[in-house]
Amino acid sequence: MSKPEIGIGLVGSGFMGRCHANAFRSVAGLFDVPAEPRLRVLADASDELAADAALSLGFERGTGHWQALVADESVDIVAITAPNVLHAPIAQAAIAAGKTVYCEKPLSTTAVLALEMTEAAEAAGVITLVGFNFLRNPMIKLAREIITSGEIGEVTGFRGRHAENYMADPDVPHSFRTDPQGGGAVADIGSHIISMARYLLGPVAEVHADCRTIHETRPTAPGMTQRAPVEVDDMTHALVRFENGVSGSLEANWAATARTMDLSWEISGTKGALAFTQERMNELQLWSGAPERSGYTRIESGPSHPPYGRFCPAPGHHLGFNDLKVIEVAELLTAHSGGTPCGPDFREAYEVQRIVEAMQVSHAQRQWVNL
Amino acid sequence: MSKPEIGIGLVGSGFMGRCHANAFRSVAGLFDVPAEPRLRVLADASDELAADAALSLGFERGTGHWQALVADESVDIVAITAPNVLHAPIAQAAIAAGKTVYCEKPLSTTAVLALEMTEAAEAAGVITLVGFNFLRNPMIKLAREIITSGEIGEVTGFRGRHAENYMADPDVPHSFRTDPQGGGAVADIGSHIISMARYLLGPVAEVHADCRTIHETRPTAPGMTQRAPVEVDDMTHALVRFENGVSGSLEANWAATARTMDLSWEISGTKGALAFTQERMNELQLWSGAPERSGYTRIESGPSHPPYGRFCPAPGHHLGFNDLKVIEVAELLTAHSGGTPCGPDFREAYEVQRIVEAMQVSHAQRQWVNL
Amino acid sequence: MSKPEIGIGLVGSGFMGRCHANAFRSVAGLFDVPAEPRLRVLADASDELAADAALSLGFERGTGHWQALVADESVDIVAITAPNVLHAPIAQAAIAAGKTVYCEKPLSTTAVLALEMTEAAEAAGVITLVGFNFLRNPMIKLAREIITSGEIGEVTGFRGRHAENYMADPDVPHSFRTDPQGGGAVADIGSHIISMARYLLGPVAEVHADCRTIHETRPTAPGMTQRAPVEVDDMTHALVRFENGVSGSLEANWAATARTMDLSWEISGTKGALAFTQERMNELQLWSGAPERSGYTRIESGPSHPPYGRFCPAPGHHLGFNDLKVIEVAELLTAHSGGTPCGPDFREAYEVQRIVEAMQVSHAQRQWVNL
Amino acid sequence: MSKPEIGIGLVGSGFMGRCHANAFRSVAGLFDVPAEPRLRVLADASDELAADAALSLGFERGTGHWQALVADESVDIVAITAPNVLHAPIAQAAIAAGKTVYCEKPLSTTAVLALEMTEAAEAAGVITLVGFNFLRNPMIKLAREIITSGEIGEVTGFRGRHAENYMADPDVPHSFRTDPQGGGAVADIGSHIISMARYLLGPVAEVHADCRTIHETRPTAPGMTQRAPVEVDDMTHALVRFENGVSGSLEANWAATARTMDLSWEISGTKGALAFTQERMNELQLWSGAPERSGYTRIESGPSHPPYGRFCPAPGHHLGFNDLKVIEVAELLTAHSGGTPCGPDFREAYEVQRIVEAMQVSHAQRQWVNL
Repeated sequence: MSKPEIGIGLVGSGFMGRCHANAFRSVAGLFDVPAEPRLRVLADASDELAADAALSLGFERGTGHWQALVADESVDIVAITAPNVLHAPIAQAAIAAGKTVYCEKPLSTTAVLALEMTEAAEAAGVITLVGFNFLRNPMIKLAREIITSGEIGEVTGFRGRHAENYMADPDVPHSFRTDPQGGGAVADIGSHIISMARYLLGPVAEVHADCRTIHETRPTAPGMTQRAPVEVDDMTHALVRFENGVSGSLEANWAATARTMDLSWEISGTKGALAFTQERMNELQLWSGAPERSGYTRIESGPSHPPYGRFCPAPGHHLGFNDLKVIEVAELLTAHSGGTPCGPDFREAYEVQRIVEAMQVSHAQRQWVNL
Repeated sequence: MSKPEIGIGLVGSGFMGRCHANAFRSVAGLFDVPAEPRLRVLADASDELAADAALSLGFERGTGHWQALVADESVDIVAITAPNVLHAPIAQAAIAAGKTVYCEKPLSTTAVLALEMTEAAEAAGVITLVGFNFLRNPMIKLAREIITSGEIGEVTGFRGRHAENYMADPDVPHSFRTDPQGGGAVADIGSHIISMARYLLGPVAEVHADCRTIHETRPTAPGMTQRAPVEVDDMTHALVRFENGVSGSLEANWAATARTMDLSWEISGTKGALAFTQERMNELQLWSGAPERSGYTRIESGPSHPPYGRFCPAPGHHLGFNDLKVIEVAELLTAHSGGTPCGPDFREAYEVQRIVEAMQVSHAQRQWVNL
Repeated sequence: MSKPEIGIGLVGSGFMGRCHANAFRSVAGLFDVPAEPRLRVLADASDELAADAALSLGFERGTGHWQALVADESVDIVAITAPNVLHAPIAQAAIAAGKTVYCEKPLSTTAVLALEMTEAAEAAGVITLVGFNFLRNPMIKLAREIITSGEIGEVTGFRGRHAENYMADPDVPHSFRTDPQGGGAVADIGSHIISMARYLLGPVAEVHADCRTIHETRPTAPGMTQRAPVEVDDMTHALVRFENGVSGSLEANWAATARTMDLSWEISGTKGALAFTQERMNELQLWSGAPERSGYTRIESGPSHPPYGRFCPAPGHHLGFNDLKVIEVAELLTAHSGGTPCGPDFREAYEVQRIVEAMQVSHAQRQWVNL
Repeated sequence: MSKPEIGIGLVGSGFMGRCHANAFRSVAGLFDVPAEPRLRVLADASDELAADAALSLGFERGTGHWQALVADESVDIVAITAPNVLHAPIAQAAIAAGKTVYCEKPLSTTAVLALEMTEAAEAAGVITLVGFNFLRNPMIKLAREIITSGEIGEVTGFRGRHAENYMADPDVPHSFRTDPQGGGAVADIGSHIISMARYLLGPVAEVHADCRTIHETRPTAPGMTQRAPVEVDDMTHALVRFENGVSGSLEANWAATARTMDLSWEISGTKGALAFTQERMNELQLWSGAPERSGYTRIESGPSHPPYGRFCPAPGHHLGFNDLKVIEVAELLTAHSGGTPCGPDFREAYEVQRIVEAMQVSHAQRQWVNL
């Protein structure tokens, strides 16, 4: 007997749009999802762009008007990968239409807007999910299990970072990333390490951040020689205290020459420690040894770490980045059909955004900020 | 305008069958393939099994008779992931029907059979592809480019290995893997490092192998306490000489405790060197340094290494094992539609199998064997 | 013709005392030093202890009175490895006697005392050296050369740490380390990463630190069950700004489960980056690559990196920790004989101590502190 | 009370001579040796060279005649670091004089000579030691303990190598290394991995080797343009079977571009595995994990691994190459004074040399050779 269908509407067809489309296409062949996603509508900046993208990504039709997508009765889940500034209006319309909303991070350009979106979604009772894909890694789930189990004792220290080099070149032009409203490295990639820190260690109590703009001007647009000032940070170093008393540091850096994906952390406890870097995403380092056998053990991802086995029954066959998105979509489809709720939802994304803004405030005021 | 369609028939729905299905589902959303694959027919051991697998993997229909799949007019490409012993009859039927044949490795249980299949395919002029997926890694393509360019000088030495631990436990029972006809570690995974060695360094001139059975008996079947002798190797160490004069060693080992995917090699040349392990499949080590700056440089996969960019426009986002299969399928679809031919074809797979058998002969005779 | 001799007096025979003794014994066979050190006098807590230690470490005689050692005319260099609280009186006496003073870090228990010692030494014109041994590593010298040469462009970011686990156990008792006056992790090992940061990047402009005591009580002494409160930090995370505008973070942690010597840093510049950890002290990571060949290059220590060649003429033969002390002593002997001046001297050690205290003040006041 | 003295005579003052001298100078300050070594006589190619070297390395006097050194009554131990061709006459003279003989590897230029030396030493009852320094590493001792304890089960496979690049350049001239009598990579560095394999796994039963000369001519001497043929191997790959049934492979390679000290191995057993490389000599990788926690554990050298604690009481402070020689000398002095016997003695070195020659014979005859 055939499974029920879930209609997917996707807004945006860039980097993340393609990644969403691939996940929705693949998921039912890999996971035992309760319903089969159907790629109904793709919305983009114009009808023509949308038609092309729909064809290339396997959607039934395209539209230049996201409003039409949201209103389409065949669409059950609205996936938002549009520019950040459009997240709020699209999400609010989808919430009003009672749809499940699956939005890329950051949820919005300001915490205030993110809170409005959160409250609207909660009032409407719709399911929401924000795309902090790195949390889907089985190694990260394992890390949380190890921490929760008490295996590394009481956690004492945290040292985390998300460092990449995509803005290291001073001639990378202005874009939505450098828009003062909500932008900067701390928002763009700092949000990943913040969300991961919360996932692993719980709420943050206070922060003290030092934000820095390395390249003070950038070209106004691609190909332009005219330059305009940059008002956001390229690199932020911060002190952080969690509610459970753990203290540590945190870095967001998009001008980190030499780094392409150093979303990494080390967590120390009274009995053990864990370390991870997304640069080797299929490995988790665990320390729990006696003095004469000390040193980290490199745990490799495998079928013992669900849902790895959905992709491959044998160990040693690595997961890739796109697989994380498939896991995310599988959890979303399950939640949409009334199964296990999934997260991080809008409220969690709002909490992350509050921390980002607290860091910016802390920097401006040169003092600790409570959350 | 919609793309033309290519009908896919898949025989088998185990580990590799699922992997094929996923690749055919995903490929058109990631690659600009000339035609859209349609998942028409899935064949399995019974109608019932096939129907279930077809539903779960997204095929239009299932059949318990692979002959029906091969004969189906809507099927253009026959993908074979059935037990090794069935490769020959299915492939021969598909060749006879003029279909493109996409077969998992090993091509067949003996080199003689593999040669028959090769000659039949060549006589019929059909396109063939054998699933040596690890060759699809952009890092492996880069390695070949570096070698071919002369950047590491004249190649002098090779040290390769495929070591895993899936048969390390003496209580893993007999299966097709331990069938004397063509089985053993040297065939099962030795073929991977042999095909990679040929891909990087060209034809092998002679081999001398030492095969060893570590566990001399195994349970006759899962759950059985009765044990039967093992007639194939668990571990083979071999000396190898390539036609171009390079000398080296090669290991196949499925009882390598501690290893889950050590498909690895180091290649030394007069001016530089390269090293790789599938355990870190997104990295290639290159040495070309001056004495005071010596040491390997860790090259990370990224958009500079096609077709990585098809999966993600940014560096640092790893490819996974399943992505290799998507690349393989994209190349197959292109070749099927008259584009760039793809490989390794049946003849190449036959050449690999000849080397496997030469190793077995060498061990039995305790001497070098020419190819 | 025999070389002139330099008389060595060593105060203390613990961990560092033995290390000093070994360095003085070995140095003349490895380095072309201008004078031959003679191990004249060893001072320890009692005449008996001193006599035993003198015999075991190869000194001519022992004394229970460091004053006698300082006054001894055959002693040219006074090496101080006594408890921190004794550094000031011994050094002041040695300065008054016009001797070269070689003191272990920290220079003293407070910055005020360290400044007094510095000013006394400068007024007397004696040579001083403080044992920040990790700076002697040829890889660290190479890192400074690379930074100074401009090879990695303008430096933008710093992320440093010294983390060990020797106080991770709450039952490690009180000792000089936990003495409130000048103690704590930030002083004990934070001083190493601070001195290294200054060596590589120059003066620090301001700091903001968060100090934390993980274990709030410890046994009053070895073997005691009675516990007393701990008043110093176990772990400090800090923000740091250098005078040249570089910003970053810094951690000192002696309760870092899983770490035995993570004196490590990454330094990013506009054109490249460097990374190092003392856990692999014979390696320096350098990034200066084009996108398609990106990734760190692992530079291994070798004869191209002086004074490695003094220990071994071939690459690949690692230096060890004790070798760093030999290098330190070789530079001291050269300076003592009127050759190239050596550092870090007392003033530099005072500057490090000022930063340590600035961090403690910053924590207490919860605000940035200028230096 | 002062310790008794042992008189040291050293023949040779090159790379290894300096290393010996340093070890004899340092050892008594680090180890509780039963007697204090006194550096009496250094012999070199001429009186003048010897006098200079004696001064620089701390010996009492020099001589251009090793015969005088051997005959010197103040010399108890004769340390031989002269060219290989001189090992036999010097050692035989020292044996005849009843002295303890400490000889660098290879023991001699042929196995026949090595056997004569061995038999002479055994007949005379003198203590002998051959400088296979890498065996002194506490990590190697730990590896042997782990193997012997049964922790990794029954050993099944071995994969070892000693690869360096010091002869990779075709313009490195002829020297004692390329002398046909006993030379070549397999003798020069192959002997290290052979001795280590025997230390860890016991006697070798048979070998099959493939030797290759990469650079067929070399300059006749430094600075010469005239070239002469090379008659020894640059690179040898070999199959090996141990008496206990373990099978594996072994490589000796002095033209391994990119490698400076890849003396490395992996040993697999039925329950676990070990891996090591001299490039990270303070680390040993141990696998003994459950499936969900699999992966190697990186054991770092520390005070739990004697005699590490002799060099430093704290973990994380690396040993270096020269420290291995100090350990060797400490064991020699103990044995000389009637304490625990030390090895490898001449007989063990002869056994290693037999294997080297068996490999050369195997290559020439293209067949397995029994030992």
